[in-house]
Amino acid sequence: MENRQQRVNAICQQHKDYQQYQQIAKVESLAKTHKDRKLCESLEQAIRRSGLQDGMTISFHHAFRAGDFVVNLVVDKLAEMGFKNLVLASSSLTDIHAPLVQHIKNGVIRKIYSSGLRGELADRISEGLMDEPATIHSHGGRVHLIKSGELKIDVAFLGVPSCDDFGNANGYSGKNVCGSLGYARVDAEFAEKVVLLTEEIVAYPHHPISIAQDQVDLIVKVDQVGDPKKIGGGATRMTKNPRELLIARKTAEVIFASGYFKDGFSMQTGSGGASLAVTRFLEDKMRKQNIKADFALGGITASMVALHEAGLIKKLLDVQSFDKTAAESLARNPNHIEVSANQYANYSSKGASVERLDIVILSALEIDTQFNVNVLTGSNGVIRGASGGHCDTAASAQLAIIVAPLVRGRIPTVVENVLTCVTPGENIDILVTDHGVAVNPKRPDLIKTLNEKGIQLFTIEQLCERAYQLTGKPKPIEFTDKPVAVVRYRDGSVIDVVYQVKQANADV
Amino acid sequence: MENRQQRVNAICQQHKDYQQYQQIAKVESLAKTHKDRKLCESLEQAIRRSGLQDGMTISFHHAFRAGDFVVNLVVDKLAEMGFKNLVLASSSLTDIHAPLVQHIKNGVIRKIYSSGLRGELADRISEGLMDEPATIHSHGGRVHLIKSGELKIDVAFLGVPSCDDFGNANGYSGKNVCGSLGYARVDAEFAEKVVLLTEEIVAYPHHPISIAQDQVDLIVKVDQVGDPKKIGGGATRMTKNPRELLIARKTAEVIFASGYFKDGFSMQTGSGGASLAVTRFLEDKMRKQNIKADFALGGITASMVALHEAGLIKKLLDVQSFDKTAAESLARNPNHIEVSANQYANYSSKGASVERLDIVILSALEIDTQFNVNVLTGSNGVIRGASGGHCDTAASAQLAIIVAPLVRGRIPTVVENVLTCVTPGENIDILVTDHGVAVNPKRPDLIKTLNEKGIQLFTIEQLCERAYQLTGKPKPIEFTDKPVAVVRYRDGSVIDVVYQVKQANADV
Repeated sequence: MENRQQRVNAICQQHKDYQQYQQIAKVESLAKTHKDRKLCESLEQAIRRSGLQDGMTISFHHAFRAGDFVVNLVVDKLAEMGFKNLVLASSSLTDIHAPLVQHIKNGVIRKIYSSGLRGELADRISEGLMDEPATIHSHGGRVHLIKSGELKIDVAFLGVPSCDDFGNANGYSGKNVCGSLGYARVDAEFAEKVVLLTEEIVAYPHHPISIAQDQVDLIVKVDQVGDPKKIGGGATRMTKNPRELLIARKTAEVIFASGYFKDGFSMQTGSGGASLAVTRFLEDKMRKQNIKADFALGGITASMVALHEAGLIKKLLDVQSFDKTAAESLARNPNHIEVSANQYANYSSKGASVERLDIVILSALEIDTQFNVNVLTGSNGVIRGASGGHCDTAASAQLAIIVAPLVRGRIPTVVENVLTCVTPGENIDILVTDHGVAVNPKRPDLIKTLNEKGIQLFTIEQLCERAYQLTGKPKPIEFTDKPVAVVRYRDGSVIDVVYQVKQANADV
Repeated sequence: MENRQQRVNAICQQHKDYQQYQQIAKVESLAKTHKDRKLCESLEQAIRRSGLQDGMTISFHHAFRAGDFVVNLVVDKLAEMGFKNLVLASSSLTDIHAPLVQHIKNGVIRKIYSSGLRGELADRISEGLMDEPATIHSHGGRVHLIKSGELKIDVAFLGVPSCDDFGNANGYSGKNVCGSLGYARVDAEFAEKVVLLTEEIVAYPHHPISIAQDQVDLIVKVDQVGDPKKIGGGATRMTKNPRELLIARKTAEVIFASGYFKDGFSMQTGSGGASLAVTRFLEDKMRKQNIKADFALGGITASMVALHEAGLIKKLLDVQSFDKTAAESLARNPNHIEVSANQYANYSSKGASVERLDIVILSALEIDTQFNVNVLTGSNGVIRGASGGHCDTAASAQLAIIVAPLVRGRIPTVVENVLTCVTPGENIDILVTDHGVAVNPKRPDLIKTLNEKGIQLFTIEQLCERAYQLTGKPKPIEFTDKPVAVVRYRDGSVIDVVYQVKQANADV
């Protein structure tokens, strides 16, 4: 058949599969007319063009932590535009997001997914502000909820310091940098529509690429997406508190004795004074014994960057830069590597870096005699924390260590039953307090090793008893029967529920 | 409720959505027992563990081109293991894949998806070897077929020079490097199971990461995945053929006159002598007029790398390193950037770099008086080429130039009707031959500009007439009514069909 149309028609008659493709294409090149098709003149235009409807799910990343400007900027605009009943899924929420309280009251936000809640927003939610309980997930668990279909993101609004006009972006080029876009990358991959809010449009093709042109639908320039100085806040500063330093030194001793401290080990520290301070005590011994870590993982801090630049940690795997120094290091250090939240901690991913972790050092608001850990609710029952990567790392690391003072003021940290369980005790190996060390009985090997190395051990019941001696046994908190938050474990299972507090006392 | 289990049960009764999550998780850490769970002892073990079944679809990348060892290695093993009726989807196939002929005869391979076919495999398929016609797609079109669900990859077998034991890999670290893994990245993202064949297992975490740990299921070490010296083959060497140099010089003149040659322009050259040689003539003028290209795209060659390292091309966007030099440059030059096939050329992606392209220079086996281009079948009707990025770039670039000799031996290149249409004429702007230049009448603006700049133009009918004067009008090829290949345009539409040749003559 000499005629092309005849040939095409014939094959489409012979093979039914091809019939839908019978029309010879007239693909007009978008490029020839719409090279700048993604650019929006205003946030309002970007929202309209995204196709957002009442009831849909919007998402955000929290790489700027307490310095985030994007959530408020976008939700204020959505409220102004009259949107209602939205589900807000931010990878986390902090004190700065107090304006959401009004938007919840006014019906703009119907439901919240977040790793954590703090400040006024957390207080009001604990008091019963929302009809539907908030879902609290871990960082890895969030990706699992997205991939399993429960959390379907319609429009992701992602703040970046700069991008090109096709949407190629990273978090460390530009003025107000946040460093790793580890959480945002998941939203960019899975959201139906992706809107970048950027401070600057740079020349095409921009790179390195964390979020790529083939993931981005719309781009809008805004004045400022965040304040890098507030990423760290107080949570990641090196402590001078003598009690925290005591706990940190003791933790280092436990690590040295544990058998996991050897050349090529890997580690992660959570935020919190004692946790971060441990690195200081490891450093000396690493230098003396010529021990180098293969990698440090997780929220990367200035102190990790210092160890990396000193050659003591070969690579940094960074899902979230925990301060401005770390954010800037990502641009500078070739072995400071961004990983997505899926690569970091999702248990249902084909491989998460937490699985490769030897040692993780984590904090706790409460830990009970079954080693269950609460990092979410204060002693008054009010939400004031975040799940974060706590259960993801604890479940996976070879050695999961909780560091905490035995009591905080008149509040015991070690208790009979945590108010809220975020990380189940089976995931925890060791508790280090300023009053002594306890090892989970499920690790007899570790008890034997530490005993042999002369580390004095207590049972966790002994530590609880000691705490109660100092503070008295805490009185039960009174709750209503209205759930305000559902805590999900990393596989999506409901691990605990937070109820409305009867009266919100200031946390002591 | 003081008891956690009571709280969980209560919420699950209240909210039905949570019932499936009522079971408090006992997620056993995989890491604690199975850190090396992805490593396989043999290719056979990797195949078994992948869950591959008869009738399924397997995929490969062609970054090693004529130096690829992986397709034959895997399919030989599959044949040995007794697999039947498989669909083979390689991003392309070359001369080296002649052993597939036996596997097709023996029923191991039932159907083929590929950008191209060459050598004995192409000859036999043109002679009617297969019951089902092969599907020929463009590089961008392949991603579209995958994303639209027609091409569902069950197991991807991807060769890499090195990776860590969790699967982090790139194409330029190790011994036998192929450079960009632009095609493989799509398979890694979309295949149900991903098996890496690697020459070397390196320390975790390996990076830079082109294929990531959260995309990889299984890893097997093999002796050699490919031969970098054969990536380029003859196709990308700089020509000394005077006719090709004449065409290249004329093409440069056309580009200078076109209005698209200015600071910040972008370009792509296909493989083929004249096409590649154009860069040589552009270089002089770029230096003299201080014109720099913002980026070069596509298959990146040594000559592009030289221009980049000389500062004349700011960035290289590399979907496929066209020779060993380019592969090595990717490791060395920070502004030599790997892009996936989706980012490169998929028309249904949220943004493909071809849309940003000013000038593309492409070759042709035939071009007809409607400017339709054949890059697939020889003058004897036998398949001997590849669709590649031809229609993707031609459809999207501002200026799509075909360079070709007017006749090859006694075969006219410009004809009344191409044997096989791969790129429709509406996508082509200019034809440059050694006997003159023709502009597509759909571009009166370009005709005007080139006329004003003193470029002598012919109609394409005049060039066809001149070709026929030199060679005589070609006799029609005789085909049977058995289709051997279906040519798909970049949007999936059937753009042409190749039929079985009645007698396979050697191409003159």
